[in-house]
Amino acid sequence: MEDYSEHCIKLLQSRGVSLEDIADCARYLQADYHVDLKSDELLASVRKVISKRETQYAIMTAIELDCMAEQNKMNDKELQSLLMHDDALYGVDEVLAYGICNTYGSIALTNFGYIDKKKYGVIDRLNKGGKNSGVCNTFIDDIVGAIAASAASRFAHRWNGDDNKEE
Amino acid sequence: MEDYSEHCIKLLQSRGVSLEDIADCARYLQADYHVDLKSDELLASVRKVISKRETQYAIMTAIELDCMAEQNKMNDKELQSLLMHDDALYGVDEVLAYGICNTYGSIALTNFGYIDKKKYGVIDRLNKGGKNSGVCNTFIDDIVGAIAASAASRFAHRWNGDDNKEE
Amino acid sequence: MEDYSEHCIKLLQSRGVSLEDIADCARYLQADYHVDLKSDELLASVRKVISKRETQYAIMTAIELDCMAEQNKMNDKELQSLLMHDDALYGVDEVLAYGICNTYGSIALTNFGYIDKKKYGVIDRLNKGGKNSGVCNTFIDDIVGAIAASAASRFAHRWNGDDNKEE
Amino acid sequence: MEDYSEHCIKLLQSRGVSLEDIADCARYLQADYHVDLKSDELLASVRKVISKRETQYAIMTAIELDCMAEQNKMNDKELQSLLMHDDALYGVDEVLAYGICNTYGSIALTNFGYIDKKKYGVIDRLNKGGKNSGVCNTFIDDIVGAIAASAASRFAHRWNGDDNKEE
Repeated sequence: MEDYSEHCIKLLQSRGVSLEDIADCARYLQADYHVDLKSDELLASVRKVISKRETQYAIMTAIELDCMAEQNKMNDKELQSLLMHDDALYGVDEVLAYGICNTYGSIALTNFGYIDKKKYGVIDRLNKGGKNSGVCNTFIDDIVGAIAASAASRFAHRWNGDDNKEE
Repeated sequence: MEDYSEHCIKLLQSRGVSLEDIADCARYLQADYHVDLKSDELLASVRKVISKRETQYAIMTAIELDCMAEQNKMNDKELQSLLMHDDALYGVDEVLAYGICNTYGSIALTNFGYIDKKKYGVIDRLNKGGKNSGVCNTFIDDIVGAIAASAASRFAHRWNGDDNKEE
Repeated sequence: MEDYSEHCIKLLQSRGVSLEDIADCARYLQADYHVDLKSDELLASVRKVISKRETQYAIMTAIELDCMAEQNKMNDKELQSLLMHDDALYGVDEVLAYGICNTYGSIALTNFGYIDKKKYGVIDRLNKGGKNSGVCNTFIDDIVGAIAASAASRFAHRWNGDDNKEE
Repeated sequence: MEDYSEHCIKLLQSRGVSLEDIADCARYLQADYHVDLKSDELLASVRKVISKRETQYAIMTAIELDCMAEQNKMNDKELQSLLMHDDALYGVDEVLAYGICNTYGSIALTNFGYIDKKKYGVIDRLNKGGKNSGVCNTFIDDIVGAIAASAASRFAHRWNGDDNKEE
């Protein structure tokens, strides 16, 4: 079956998000666990999360929605307006993010809630960038948060010796 | 704040789904509870579910995605192909559906799983229609199932005298 | 870190549930996919689901609650009564079950909803047994359904060549 | 049908948690929205969340589990040990908490993730108290966080004029 890992990494890059940006968010989240991780371990974990089918489909759908809104291509102009203004009550972006986190268990979900509120690093940048006219980052910031939250959850399980986590 | 109820009812109709179709699915699901419901009670419950903001945003997003795929407008041709073929492992449609059901509690979720597999009534029609070339019903069938499952869950709570359910 | 697989298999057996019973439910669920699976493949998949930490903790918590209710040991007599009567609106049992299914993605959730309503095999037996005075199977039937649903979801992903599913 | 609101408020008090404590957590969470809420509005919202059946059953189950572990009454000594030590990978407490938050939509879930990490107010007190020998607060801190997160989510929807939120 086709693997969309490289496709998704390119899509993220096209929206200004590098794997290093996401790894940096994961590092921020795992700092609570007082473990010192090397950059390549962090990057490898982010890549692992992106290699999962659920993550790939969420990334592709999320970025398409941001792009369609930005390109003024949507049939439903009400929806387009909600997305362009990142309406506070529009929660489908978080719902997609939970679809990623869920497969990494409950720690991933709390990690996501935390970074979604703190808006660290690239998430803050995306959030602010999305306030400019003509840019829609409504979905991408939540997806990045979900990938980082899931990658950090993988560490938490491994530090506790839980190699079975992903079986 | 703007209410998108009528907007969403029109969107559903534009995809060949009437409120009566959804009420019929809810009737099918609630039959287990051995209660005889009148058509207007069923319709009222479906309308109530659609009046909820989470439901409205999920409907709008789902129908937009089906339309964009159908219209060959997507930037990401991989995603478009997955949606046009209703790929078995593409699960974002169910993730959106859970976003609706979740707000109605655990009975709504089991109702959804059941009708999603049984493909009753309009859901079966949508599912089969989506296999025709040029038609994309990947999202709409799950959204219809989720609305029906939520409406049936409202009944289950009310029959048990749980008026607090939606507070 | 301690592995509770054998501990959980014994707990399930103490409530009258064998791995073969669960594998039989998984076989029932995967029949839709028109694939002929051998018994040992089914059993191996059930064991894999039980080797996951989230599953183990859910099993242990669920069985403890059923036992405590049955043994009349609960401090909260309202809760004990709800559990002994398997109250229709008590949904914490399904919530625990979703905790297992979530980590296997959206197919596992719909599988669970389906088997929870159909009450196939051991699930039917548990459900009926729980109606006898002195027996509490409120949690165990949902947990068994969740393990079977997750095991069947693993097959669905593998048949589609998705080896990345559990990474 | 019986309403367990007062029963649950007493259970919370028996574990050292007042409605005012929870309202204080909700105030902390809603501060982001730059709205000045009166104490009685906050308390009313907390009471509303507790009047919902899903919340009540989660509270009753959670507190029973903490008490049973503390009283050394559990049949499963492995589970008892996990709960007494508030094991980092034991996530059933968060799963129960999500069962409450889910019915309040996606904002409630991110609120929960945030306060679960920040451990504000009574949540911090419960968490620290649970580290004493003979005390088990493994479930109660998450339940309190979930009620506060849900109450704060209700505000967020109302400030945006979304009166339909709970219908």
